[in-house]
Amino acid sequence: MRSILARRRPDVAVDIGDDAAVLSAVSEPLVWTVDAAVEGVHFRPEWLTWREVGFRSFVAAASDLAAMGAAAYAAVLSLTLPHEFHDESLFDLVRGVADAADRARTSVVGGNLTAGKAVSVHTSLLGTVTGSPLTRAGAKSGDTIYVTGAPGAAALGLCALQANRLDVSEFVRAWKRPPNRLARGRELLGVASAAVDLSDGLIQDLGHVCEASGVGAVIELGQVPVPQRFDQVAAELAADPVWLTLAGGESYELLFTVAEGVDASHLGCPIGTVREQLGVEVIAADGRTVDEAATRVGYQHFTSQEPNLPK
Amino acid sequence: MRSILARRRPDVAVDIGDDAAVLSAVSEPLVWTVDAAVEGVHFRPEWLTWREVGFRSFVAAASDLAAMGAAAYAAVLSLTLPHEFHDESLFDLVRGVADAADRARTSVVGGNLTAGKAVSVHTSLLGTVTGSPLTRAGAKSGDTIYVTGAPGAAALGLCALQANRLDVSEFVRAWKRPPNRLARGRELLGVASAAVDLSDGLIQDLGHVCEASGVGAVIELGQVPVPQRFDQVAAELAADPVWLTLAGGESYELLFTVAEGVDASHLGCPIGTVREQLGVEVIAADGRTVDEAATRVGYQHFTSQEPNLPK
Repeated sequence: MRSILARRRPDVAVDIGDDAAVLSAVSEPLVWTVDAAVEGVHFRPEWLTWREVGFRSFVAAASDLAAMGAAAYAAVLSLTLPHEFHDESLFDLVRGVADAADRARTSVVGGNLTAGKAVSVHTSLLGTVTGSPLTRAGAKSGDTIYVTGAPGAAALGLCALQANRLDVSEFVRAWKRPPNRLARGRELLGVASAAVDLSDGLIQDLGHVCEASGVGAVIELGQVPVPQRFDQVAAELAADPVWLTLAGGESYELLFTVAEGVDASHLGCPIGTVREQLGVEVIAADGRTVDEAATRVGYQHFTSQEPNLPK
Repeated sequence: MRSILARRRPDVAVDIGDDAAVLSAVSEPLVWTVDAAVEGVHFRPEWLTWREVGFRSFVAAASDLAAMGAAAYAAVLSLTLPHEFHDESLFDLVRGVADAADRARTSVVGGNLTAGKAVSVHTSLLGTVTGSPLTRAGAKSGDTIYVTGAPGAAALGLCALQANRLDVSEFVRAWKRPPNRLARGRELLGVASAAVDLSDGLIQDLGHVCEASGVGAVIELGQVPVPQRFDQVAAELAADPVWLTLAGGESYELLFTVAEGVDASHLGCPIGTVREQLGVEVIAADGRTVDEAATRVGYQHFTSQEPNLPK
């Protein structure tokens, strides 16, 4: 594992193999997060290779840094593995982590392995930020709301995996290989007033921003990007495209707000407006308000042992 | 949870509740570790209150910082909890973590919660170190080997718990409430040539130091501290006191080496000597070499779903 993960870094004095890793001091504020991917909760082994599990778990953790405008500095892993787990599967998982860490321009400097009934990957990431980090607080009435990518694509990919529709590979891929938005996050520094990564679903994560900022929001449903074939494939899978777009989780795209009059369309797609009135309202293309129920149901922790599926 | 864990800290700009925590830059090298406590592997719920689970998991993680001579800076938690886990149990667990963090003069600044079949607590700790951290490498032939505390006491406590012998409370307590050796670890800076925390058992962890340092060692069994009643209680529990002392894990005491001629007896108890010849030899009080088998068996990861028990 050490040979898979180790990278020569002048800023790492001690890496994998001692009681703890030792990193050089950094002169910038530290941003620190942890995220977990648990077999049977976040993924099923039949859906992903172990290398994909490793890759995806790392990118999902890194999206928290992206949402703060941070660069990844280093990572540590805590793995639980069943006794029957093969060494080669472990090495594949670790290779996937290393792939994702390389793309994030960082590396894993330490970790812990223990037995457990299910495979779980707990990824802790340290980042550094130049100036003030983006937070969920800071959105102001009149700000424009933007998203990167197409927030519903990953949720549709999850539907496809459940239905064994592997032919709709662009959606399956959106779920399996979430985007690395670290560079985009850094571009938002000094531009965005608030940001969040979309792990729980667009409306729920926008709700976090609104709550932290003490504001409300209006979303123009027709402005939210959807990929080609989205409605058609959703229909084939008996999934509600509106639900997927508004409440489907795990896209790991970024949602951010920008002061009125500032054009950030090179960084994302404008989808709505921050307002004083609390709550999030969604306006359909025909001008009618979308039923709140369709916007309320997001990724609910602890609601199911199964992956978090559109109902 | 936030109200249980939050502490006012001028060096924490953003704590629990945003995508990630934001900490002030520190001018010293960073020491970073992660450790896990998994139900059915590291503990059984009938042995510990949830508050004790939280306390113990934090101290076990912190012992890695102690072994490097670091002060704790901040912690993040990643928890997996079964659906049926009660909120009150969760709050108790978190209170135990907060108790231990307070004693370590630090606090939890972020984390992640997810569902899982078993309770697991993954604790990641950042520390800072003044000057050069202690590592496992650095022991030199002729150095004296020291330990803090009585390395076998916790393993005997685990035997007592298995046998439901709660009356031998000093040993049960040694297992339930491992020592906070952070201050001691810092006292070792500039004194010790190498250090490790005793999580896997004295001989196995000493072996890690020897391997990293390219040396061997001789231990005088009669010099290794044992508490009062140790042999008697071990006999009552049909446990081998030599095995407990040499191979019993989870004491979270420190083992360290000090250059010949330097007296560190105020920091630990001298128990042996580093030598050029590779391998670890144990000499009994009668001058005979202790059978290698009794020294070889330590805490073996992945050998059992059950807690790691003396056989």
